[in-house]
Amino acid sequence: MHVALQQDVAPSELPSQQSQPAPRDLRRVDIHPDHWYPVAWSREVKRGKAHGVRFAGDPVVLVRTESGKAFALEDRCAHRQVPLHAGVVDGESIRCCYHGWTYDCTGRCIDVPYLGRERLPNGVRSYPCREEAGLIFIFPGDPLLAETTPFPALGSVGDKAYKTRRFGREVKCHYSFMHENLMDMNHQFLHRKQMGQMKARSVGRSRGEDWVEVNYTFAREEGKQPIGEALVFSQKRGTKPDDNNKDVMTIRTEYPYQTLRIRTKDQTMVMDLWIAYVPLDAEQRTNRTFGLLSIRRPKIPGILDAAWPLLVWFTERIFKEDRWIVEREQEAHDRQGADHNHEVFPVILELRSLLTECGAPVREPATERRVHMIQPISD
Amino acid sequence: MHVALQQDVAPSELPSQQSQPAPRDLRRVDIHPDHWYPVAWSREVKRGKAHGVRFAGDPVVLVRTESGKAFALEDRCAHRQVPLHAGVVDGESIRCCYHGWTYDCTGRCIDVPYLGRERLPNGVRSYPCREEAGLIFIFPGDPLLAETTPFPALGSVGDKAYKTRRFGREVKCHYSFMHENLMDMNHQFLHRKQMGQMKARSVGRSRGEDWVEVNYTFAREEGKQPIGEALVFSQKRGTKPDDNNKDVMTIRTEYPYQTLRIRTKDQTMVMDLWIAYVPLDAEQRTNRTFGLLSIRRPKIPGILDAAWPLLVWFTERIFKEDRWIVEREQEAHDRQGADHNHEVFPVILELRSLLTECGAPVREPATERRVHMIQPISD
Amino acid sequence: MHVALQQDVAPSELPSQQSQPAPRDLRRVDIHPDHWYPVAWSREVKRGKAHGVRFAGDPVVLVRTESGKAFALEDRCAHRQVPLHAGVVDGESIRCCYHGWTYDCTGRCIDVPYLGRERLPNGVRSYPCREEAGLIFIFPGDPLLAETTPFPALGSVGDKAYKTRRFGREVKCHYSFMHENLMDMNHQFLHRKQMGQMKARSVGRSRGEDWVEVNYTFAREEGKQPIGEALVFSQKRGTKPDDNNKDVMTIRTEYPYQTLRIRTKDQTMVMDLWIAYVPLDAEQRTNRTFGLLSIRRPKIPGILDAAWPLLVWFTERIFKEDRWIVEREQEAHDRQGADHNHEVFPVILELRSLLTECGAPVREPATERRVHMIQPISD
Repeated sequence: MHVALQQDVAPSELPSQQSQPAPRDLRRVDIHPDHWYPVAWSREVKRGKAHGVRFAGDPVVLVRTESGKAFALEDRCAHRQVPLHAGVVDGESIRCCYHGWTYDCTGRCIDVPYLGRERLPNGVRSYPCREEAGLIFIFPGDPLLAETTPFPALGSVGDKAYKTRRFGREVKCHYSFMHENLMDMNHQFLHRKQMGQMKARSVGRSRGEDWVEVNYTFAREEGKQPIGEALVFSQKRGTKPDDNNKDVMTIRTEYPYQTLRIRTKDQTMVMDLWIAYVPLDAEQRTNRTFGLLSIRRPKIPGILDAAWPLLVWFTERIFKEDRWIVEREQEAHDRQGADHNHEVFPVILELRSLLTECGAPVREPATERRVHMIQPISD
Repeated sequence: MHVALQQDVAPSELPSQQSQPAPRDLRRVDIHPDHWYPVAWSREVKRGKAHGVRFAGDPVVLVRTESGKAFALEDRCAHRQVPLHAGVVDGESIRCCYHGWTYDCTGRCIDVPYLGRERLPNGVRSYPCREEAGLIFIFPGDPLLAETTPFPALGSVGDKAYKTRRFGREVKCHYSFMHENLMDMNHQFLHRKQMGQMKARSVGRSRGEDWVEVNYTFAREEGKQPIGEALVFSQKRGTKPDDNNKDVMTIRTEYPYQTLRIRTKDQTMVMDLWIAYVPLDAEQRTNRTFGLLSIRRPKIPGILDAAWPLLVWFTERIFKEDRWIVEREQEAHDRQGADHNHEVFPVILELRSLLTECGAPVREPATERRVHMIQPISD
Repeated sequence: MHVALQQDVAPSELPSQQSQPAPRDLRRVDIHPDHWYPVAWSREVKRGKAHGVRFAGDPVVLVRTESGKAFALEDRCAHRQVPLHAGVVDGESIRCCYHGWTYDCTGRCIDVPYLGRERLPNGVRSYPCREEAGLIFIFPGDPLLAETTPFPALGSVGDKAYKTRRFGREVKCHYSFMHENLMDMNHQFLHRKQMGQMKARSVGRSRGEDWVEVNYTFAREEGKQPIGEALVFSQKRGTKPDDNNKDVMTIRTEYPYQTLRIRTKDQTMVMDLWIAYVPLDAEQRTNRTFGLLSIRRPKIPGILDAAWPLLVWFTERIFKEDRWIVEREQEAHDRQGADHNHEVFPVILELRSLLTECGAPVREPATERRVHMIQPISD
């Protein structure tokens, strides 16, 4: 992978929207399907139950069989197109609720109650499916690429030194607004009520073929440190009042995922966030966010657990403000019919070009896959 | 009328979707307007009141005059197009609520309060209208055909040997899904919670020019007979446990109506359902269902009346499940933009071809009928 | 200004819809932007706060600065297009809630916290803005015309001899339906429950280049005088029972505003209504109504104040009925896709032609104004 470490560059060297008008509106660039995407929390798919989700407009049923294994199929019965998630798990298969057509984990139709087994119709599409760290992932693109496509490293969720909060919900905007929101720390003004007046300073960015990364330091301009922030740093903070200026926040989009890590002066990672934004509708104007927020446990046992509800409350407030503003951005795009953003921050310009380049090729007019059917039976 | 009684035929003789792709998407075939359609229950149109309904997107006002007679007009005042159903019944006419323009039962404008009677504007469209068995019917097609078009036989609603339940409501799907749902008894699996595991066996079908009919027998595979079903059969059932296997259910679509009748071994009809599905919106993706469900009274007087609430509850549950699933079918059609059904059951293939053949010709681009107006008056 | 005083004319002299079909559907004629339009009540825009409104689809932020002055800008930050009304008033400027970009009353961007002041981006559009009689007006058209365009005379709102009620709300219809509703007093039938049976008689109309006016007298046909009406007239009414037949109501559309005045026999103006209908959405199928209803104070002090709640209740009822019916008219237009009105009243035909002639030219396909941005900064 080609990696270019960049120093801050002068405006004239930057790609400029005026001189080189982007050939595509980023807000209409579909996410690339040839990656592993989380589509549900494990706890949402109970044993012996089916659960319907969506990926970019495609209905997907997640089935947890009686043995506990999860699989993913197109969420439409081949017969009458009704959702399979309303069906009945039968051993290791799923039976449609309407006429009882039954499918195994590969999507093959293995039973039609009123039809001889020798004349079974074709089945439905299946998706490669993996379960990790309490998340169920599918591979919505070319299934032949699933095995060779790297599965994401899910932050510090597996490390006992950290406590992890799982969060996220549906947000009514294109995934690109989410990436830009998190990466542009100049938006601290939005969180002034929660965070006080913080001034972010970007101290270097770098870019590779499928990633872009930026480092920030922060200076408090006004107000005192919020308690939620104190929780994260308490165990690492020195006595000098400006020690917090030495913390470095690294935000990285490694397509299609994003991470945010905070390291103290001595390189201890005190916070590690892994997050993915998964398009729900065909137009990709909504996404479901799946976040794993890991906080390093302080040396005094139990203190983080005790303070956890406060941290949950604090992060929920921040996330709520972010959700509100990105939905306003999408709303403006919907009304203006095009991207009227006037971005001036080079990090974000870099990110936008990354998201455009890594995104799916221009969307073809929707065509539905057809499953061929067998000859009709006599009754 | 040409009638062809068919035996079960081999698949090769059947019309096949592959070899002869249907030239029209059945879900876009409008119902044929040259029939009598119920549009309201009689009790919904009170004496001296007007009531607004819709037929396939056309607003219709039903007026019950002070003498008790019902008539049907286009539900728009010729003047400002506001709904006449908000108006005032004045003797045998209806007066628009806005400026008081008044129409008689033929739709003729008979008064404009601020205009001389010699210069009255043209009126509004009227519909042939009949009231039978607690239902108000209109003839939405060519009014010249109304008189010669057979009025439907409304099951056993007029027979004292039966008790009839009137039911129905708005269902968000094309009427064709309703016909297919009722006629395909392989969907008993959907009602497994209400009915236990029943296996339907089709034992012969027949087809005429404007009708298709199928007979079923049933075998209970698991669970015990539900109480609602027991009510229907109690008086007729013999002592042998498999007597119910001798009951025959006949489902018939006689365009555009549908009936379901159950006869016991001795040919007693124990249940007689007449049902119609009336499109509400112009796209015909919603319908209002009007059902007359007649149950034969047992010999012991009063027992059916006593058990009636239970039967109401039971049939409501079944109808609710059916409504839910047909709305999912419509939803899939809306999302897929075409009919992706892979039907394998010959009865239903026959029914689909009937509904297509008997339906309205291809819809023309919407054009509104214009009523010519008189010269403006001086003030 | 050319003024033509017209006597009642014979139908043959009137413009006829048949012989000269209107080249434009009035319901699609946009209101002309080169006028002063109220967009909010003063009390809605508190000191040190911002308030978002809309004019014909364009979002507008009204800002009341710390000194109490109001100004109006496009309600979108030049940067990310999010609404400025969610921002923070900072002295005499408004700061966007997201990244803190700051604009003065002319729309100029005067601060981007993370950008040098010498490289500030262009700002946002500003609107000429005036505050009168508790209303905030903007001039949405060509700002060069604002100063020379006459500001409307706001009825008797400034006259101590009158008490004024401010009222209005959002109505889901094109503004033209509002003008026609108020001007056609034959619609008294709609208010029969509030007003009893009144018969309006038009007694002369006149027309100028940008206005049309009609006079009415009224005769009570049935029922007694409603109490709300009595309030208005009590102090002026003589003892003869038919004195009220001598009152004259004058309704005038002086583009784009409307007035309704009632004068008694001795020419005392007992009621003076000024009203404006301001389109909210781009299609102009909704409007917000701003009304100033001034009632002449009777000689006995305090009597009008005591009866005020009754008058509020009475006018709210009337306005509610009018709102309901004009929304039905818009609904019919939406469904019919064109104007099917068959108007027979010459006053209204005149008004329709006025509204068409004074309206905006045919709408061009929506194009968004672009603010040029500066070169991106380095970080």
